[in-house]
Amino acid sequence: MSTAQAKVVYGADQSFQSAEIQRRELQPHDVLIEIKYAGICHSDIHSARGEWGPVQYPFVPGHEIAGIIAAVGSAVTKHTVGDRVGVGCMVDSCGKCVHCHDGEEQYCLEGMTGTYGSVDRYGQYTQGGYSSHIVVTEEFVVKIPDNIALDAAAPLLCAGITTYSPLRHWGAAPGKKIAVVGLGGLGHMAVKFAHAMGSEVTVLSQSLKKKEDGLKLGASAYYATSDPETFKELAGSFDLIINTVSAQIDMNAYLSLLAVDGTLVNVGAPAEPLPVQVFSLIGKRRSFAGSSIGGIRETQEMLDFCAEHNITPEIEVISADRIDEAWERVMKSDVKYRFVIDIATL
Amino acid sequence: MSTAQAKVVYGADQSFQSAEIQRRELQPHDVLIEIKYAGICHSDIHSARGEWGPVQYPFVPGHEIAGIIAAVGSAVTKHTVGDRVGVGCMVDSCGKCVHCHDGEEQYCLEGMTGTYGSVDRYGQYTQGGYSSHIVVTEEFVVKIPDNIALDAAAPLLCAGITTYSPLRHWGAAPGKKIAVVGLGGLGHMAVKFAHAMGSEVTVLSQSLKKKEDGLKLGASAYYATSDPETFKELAGSFDLIINTVSAQIDMNAYLSLLAVDGTLVNVGAPAEPLPVQVFSLIGKRRSFAGSSIGGIRETQEMLDFCAEHNITPEIEVISADRIDEAWERVMKSDVKYRFVIDIATL
Repeated sequence: MSTAQAKVVYGADQSFQSAEIQRRELQPHDVLIEIKYAGICHSDIHSARGEWGPVQYPFVPGHEIAGIIAAVGSAVTKHTVGDRVGVGCMVDSCGKCVHCHDGEEQYCLEGMTGTYGSVDRYGQYTQGGYSSHIVVTEEFVVKIPDNIALDAAAPLLCAGITTYSPLRHWGAAPGKKIAVVGLGGLGHMAVKFAHAMGSEVTVLSQSLKKKEDGLKLGASAYYATSDPETFKELAGSFDLIINTVSAQIDMNAYLSLLAVDGTLVNVGAPAEPLPVQVFSLIGKRRSFAGSSIGGIRETQEMLDFCAEHNITPEIEVISADRIDEAWERVMKSDVKYRFVIDIATL
Repeated sequence: MSTAQAKVVYGADQSFQSAEIQRRELQPHDVLIEIKYAGICHSDIHSARGEWGPVQYPFVPGHEIAGIIAAVGSAVTKHTVGDRVGVGCMVDSCGKCVHCHDGEEQYCLEGMTGTYGSVDRYGQYTQGGYSSHIVVTEEFVVKIPDNIALDAAAPLLCAGITTYSPLRHWGAAPGKKIAVVGLGGLGHMAVKFAHAMGSEVTVLSQSLKKKEDGLKLGASAYYATSDPETFKELAGSFDLIINTVSAQIDMNAYLSLLAVDGTLVNVGAPAEPLPVQVFSLIGKRRSFAGSSIGGIRETQEMLDFCAEHNITPEIEVISADRIDEAWERVMKSDVKYRFVIDIATL
């Protein structure tokens, strides 16, 4: 075992404390990463507070990890010491099922091992990236291209891949009309990606407060969903809607904005079920779907796409003593557009 | 105008009466069909009773129509007197929009004209197939292959195409595992089609009462949904689920039966919204979709597929004085598997 510094919560309603945690000894295929930056994802908050099911405490969140390889196991071939690397929402999977073989480890039939809050193959409870170091099997570590700064790279590992993957899967391309619901950490990445893929992008946000930002990020139109006229004007318009909002919204109103054969994909998950009016699906052969992150191969593809198109998230770097405050601001959607913890301040 | 005999309801809670109705004069592209058989679809009942929105009375249901061409307009090229033909759920569309051009008139952007309960381009309220004659523009009339009896052909025009189209759209084929929810008029056709397309078919029915039938129709497995073990045993199993049940069912339980990238397609529409748990979509990139009948070209393809594979619905032919009784039995799911009215008894 080796020790790492971490920011830890000891209960659902507790604030962060500094603590030492244990990381496993390097196995032949493991790498040790010196973490430089960790993004703050809304999932961190839901998970740490037990809102998505019970968790064990002490609990270390963080699944948007960017750092440098500090050591490699005896059999590692993919990475060498000094490499700039990233780790996202998962650190392992069975490696044998059809989905692992297809490079979609997030849908592993045995269940992928989450970067935090999971029990790994060694029986250890995984602890995330609000920490100085992490040990991960080499296959779940991706390379960060040289022209992407490590602080900006961190949010790509969750917010990036979570929006990139459904855009690819449902065919974002020139000629496609795509709407993005919510302009937050995920939404602002969805706008950048969909625009870079050549689609015509519309932002659907509660108000017009961030309209200028949205247009700069690549949207060609921006509508307030608080205005009922929006739903009349845009009825039947979109080939694809990426819904990044985890709150309960009127799904039938948003489904009505889809064209024939259109799909609304939720990447956020409200805890409560959403009522869906089936007639609104049938009348235009619409689909209501969900998507979860992306596989390791696709995560690397996404990072390379970002490097090629000069895409990075809009971030606000904070010191580690401000995580509690940042979480409060995330809860109030008061962030443009992702907090990233400078792990050097741990 | 020409007159036709019909079975008519004069109100939502009324029983059928015989009456004379008017059909329009033959326009250059119209054909006059002498109706031989009309299927009884559950939609007839919902519509006539105003359960899917207000309708005008007198009201003549029936959108599963099989008959013989009795006369043709001056410019008709597709059909000649004596042809065996069918008419389904729609009798017209704009003919100009992208979906009409694609041969998917059911998704016409101006709204297709329903065989009953719609206002057509002449301003007339359309009246359906529980009638001796109907006038339809030639493009919305399909040919019934010689080896399909007219009585058995009738239900193909709605129950047939409504299940054939989503099976084709979502890729029913060898190697695909498909479940059919509900073994009624639509469900029994879905089983026959999915089996003929080479898929492995499972029926999910409330009880095992019709198990023997289901296996004869082409299913390789049959489960009772009243047994909670069914949902444990089949979790994550199916590539495609065709839900033919219009009643409120626990959609999340059925979604949990889908494999990664699986789709559950509703062809029945409950009036009330269904609560959908978004986590059950996200975890396996599942979709919940709807589908409405099929285009004219695909309806012809479906009839030709039936002719080639010797597929016909299981029917019970009744005389016209028994429609009220048949409706009561449809409401109780007491039919194997489709009532067809012998229009000669009108």
